[in-house]
Amino acid sequence: MRPVAVIGIGKTPFGAFADRDLRTLAVESAQRCLQDAAATPAQVEAFYLGNFAGPSFVGQSHLAPYIAASMGITDVPATRFEAACASSGAAFAHAHAAVASGLFDLVMVTGVEKMTSQATPRVAEILAMAGDCSGEGKAGATFPALFAMIAQRHMHQYGTTREHMAAVAVKNHANGAKNPGAHLKKIITMEQALAGKPVADPLTVYDCSLVSDGAAAVLLAPLERAHEFTNRPVRVLAVAQTSDHVALDQKDDITTFRAVRTAAEKAYRAAGLTAADIQFAEVHDCFTIAEIIAIEDLGFVEKGRGGFYSLAGHTCLSGERPINTSGGLKSKGHPVGATGVAQICDVALQIRGEAGERQLKRNQIGLAQNLGGSGATCVVSILGAA
Amino acid sequence: MRPVAVIGIGKTPFGAFADRDLRTLAVESAQRCLQDAAATPAQVEAFYLGNFAGPSFVGQSHLAPYIAASMGITDVPATRFEAACASSGAAFAHAHAAVASGLFDLVMVTGVEKMTSQATPRVAEILAMAGDCSGEGKAGATFPALFAMIAQRHMHQYGTTREHMAAVAVKNHANGAKNPGAHLKKIITMEQALAGKPVADPLTVYDCSLVSDGAAAVLLAPLERAHEFTNRPVRVLAVAQTSDHVALDQKDDITTFRAVRTAAEKAYRAAGLTAADIQFAEVHDCFTIAEIIAIEDLGFVEKGRGGFYSLAGHTCLSGERPINTSGGLKSKGHPVGATGVAQICDVALQIRGEAGERQLKRNQIGLAQNLGGSGATCVVSILGAA
Repeated sequence: MRPVAVIGIGKTPFGAFADRDLRTLAVESAQRCLQDAAATPAQVEAFYLGNFAGPSFVGQSHLAPYIAASMGITDVPATRFEAACASSGAAFAHAHAAVASGLFDLVMVTGVEKMTSQATPRVAEILAMAGDCSGEGKAGATFPALFAMIAQRHMHQYGTTREHMAAVAVKNHANGAKNPGAHLKKIITMEQALAGKPVADPLTVYDCSLVSDGAAAVLLAPLERAHEFTNRPVRVLAVAQTSDHVALDQKDDITTFRAVRTAAEKAYRAAGLTAADIQFAEVHDCFTIAEIIAIEDLGFVEKGRGGFYSLAGHTCLSGERPINTSGGLKSKGHPVGATGVAQICDVALQIRGEAGERQLKRNQIGLAQNLGGSGATCVVSILGAA
Repeated sequence: MRPVAVIGIGKTPFGAFADRDLRTLAVESAQRCLQDAAATPAQVEAFYLGNFAGPSFVGQSHLAPYIAASMGITDVPATRFEAACASSGAAFAHAHAAVASGLFDLVMVTGVEKMTSQATPRVAEILAMAGDCSGEGKAGATFPALFAMIAQRHMHQYGTTREHMAAVAVKNHANGAKNPGAHLKKIITMEQALAGKPVADPLTVYDCSLVSDGAAAVLLAPLERAHEFTNRPVRVLAVAQTSDHVALDQKDDITTFRAVRTAAEKAYRAAGLTAADIQFAEVHDCFTIAEIIAIEDLGFVEKGRGGFYSLAGHTCLSGERPINTSGGLKSKGHPVGATGVAQICDVALQIRGEAGERQLKRNQIGLAQNLGGSGATCVVSILGAA
């Protein structure tokens, strides 16, 4: 396996765009990415697309060639990957493996979702298909309901409080307000976060990520060829994807995600690093409790201490371990299929020193954690300065 | 890249099974496959799932871990691939690359679709999402309509006749009648085929493949390890996946599929073979005209001669180049996401000498051609005796 670099990144803004369709969003991100790397569509040897539910949201399947061909990429493999909210994380993992193994040199990974053309109840229904529909779905459990159960158990078991979760929301909103591409640029106070409209007890609207439209893309190449395209390559130190049961009732303990722990272990081992080496991370805060569990499962804090650590400010921009400097799914937005690749873009942006107002000083080693459903898929990627 | 072998194959029967769900079908095929290779779930290092439209047909996304975990495969990458009717062909292509490159040793590829729980009009609607919904779909074009246009143009340009297409149907029904796992086991005459109920002129019901439930699985391993599992390994000589525009109006010529030609070229080159070396093939006869075009685009006959060649009997079991000895999508059945892997199983069965009444004598080198939509994705795989 040879070293791989991210040689280009591109994103659309995230938001609710009534006048945009799925394809033009994806194409815009991919074209920005090609421009960033000074590469052409003809140089792309394979197209990896992450998309969760284009068929359900906008009535279009077969999205990979549909998007690739419209930007002049044909005669190459163009494939859609679906792994719920980790769809483009999975696409990134497979693309990375293809370049690392020498199968291809230049590959494009794009993630896209166009969600806001459906009304909220239908969006909830489509998202619920990422859970176990024969059990959880039949019982009426939407994703806020599933993560509310997880939060209740975490509070019971570890003393996590609503203030802990609210601290995650306040911090991610503050970061998002500094991100020009974020869906929500709205600073909130602890009081506002605690007074949010209830969604599924104990979760309020401020604990839930956004329903967004958007796309993100990265271009991968062997590290040894990176200089042909860019003087700002970012090295991929490791990518690991793992899986677990879909239904919550199949898990021994719902306050931890086994797939996150196994993916993190594999990624740390492959990179020759430990959790202590990770300076900052984009984690999958589909709900505030998910960020708390993520920083525990990734080994940044002891099990059960994620909420306390967050409330103490350690995950803020100025904290010892900044988490979701982009604003996270909570504030940057969560166009499901785009999220995994968007996280890679955001980590790369920090490493390139281009994160503007959000720029960190300790920016050499960052991690992205992309979660599918209530933990059945996890992709952990570690990026570093080249 | 190291040589790869198919060390196990497993299929459910194809048909309309009111009492079966998607997951149990997929699990049955995968378990049969593991048994065939005397392997265990714990040995599987990655799970590649081909599924076209589980979310639309049965309301379940995130299908790869959903299926894998229920048969004891966890802690490994489990990923769904969607490329319309070439979904499991794409999964097979990526799995093959992963083993060939040394990323994994043992990988499971499963394809599944459960279609018959929806009424026919909804099935047509779901299938149409594999075309361009902003154009073709909006205009009301279902897949039979698209392939009817293709057939009309092929008839106009090359003198192909309804008898030519009927000959494909008669042959595939005859082969399917010899296949215990086929959806339809019904011999038809040329007169019956020509008198079929019209679907979209010139196509009749006998020109259209079936709406089926079913699953298929193969287990891949490095050739050098094949003997640990089986004394009947089948060698994968080459796999190539390519792409093209989704919409018919974006193609220069609708009587040929560019993606099939480019995939075939790449596969022949990688295997060091020519079309003349291929002794038999499973091709993607979603419609009879698609089989005629396939044997032309794969280089088995001169462009425009596919219909004449078929009517002359050259593609029958006893002909010079047997095509679809399984009965093809027309008679074996076409559970969309299962088809690509099922083709691999059927080619492997011939090479292993286990095709029963359909067994060929010239069975050393076979090809599988899996088509997505109206030609936007194509996967060509060549298998040989190990």
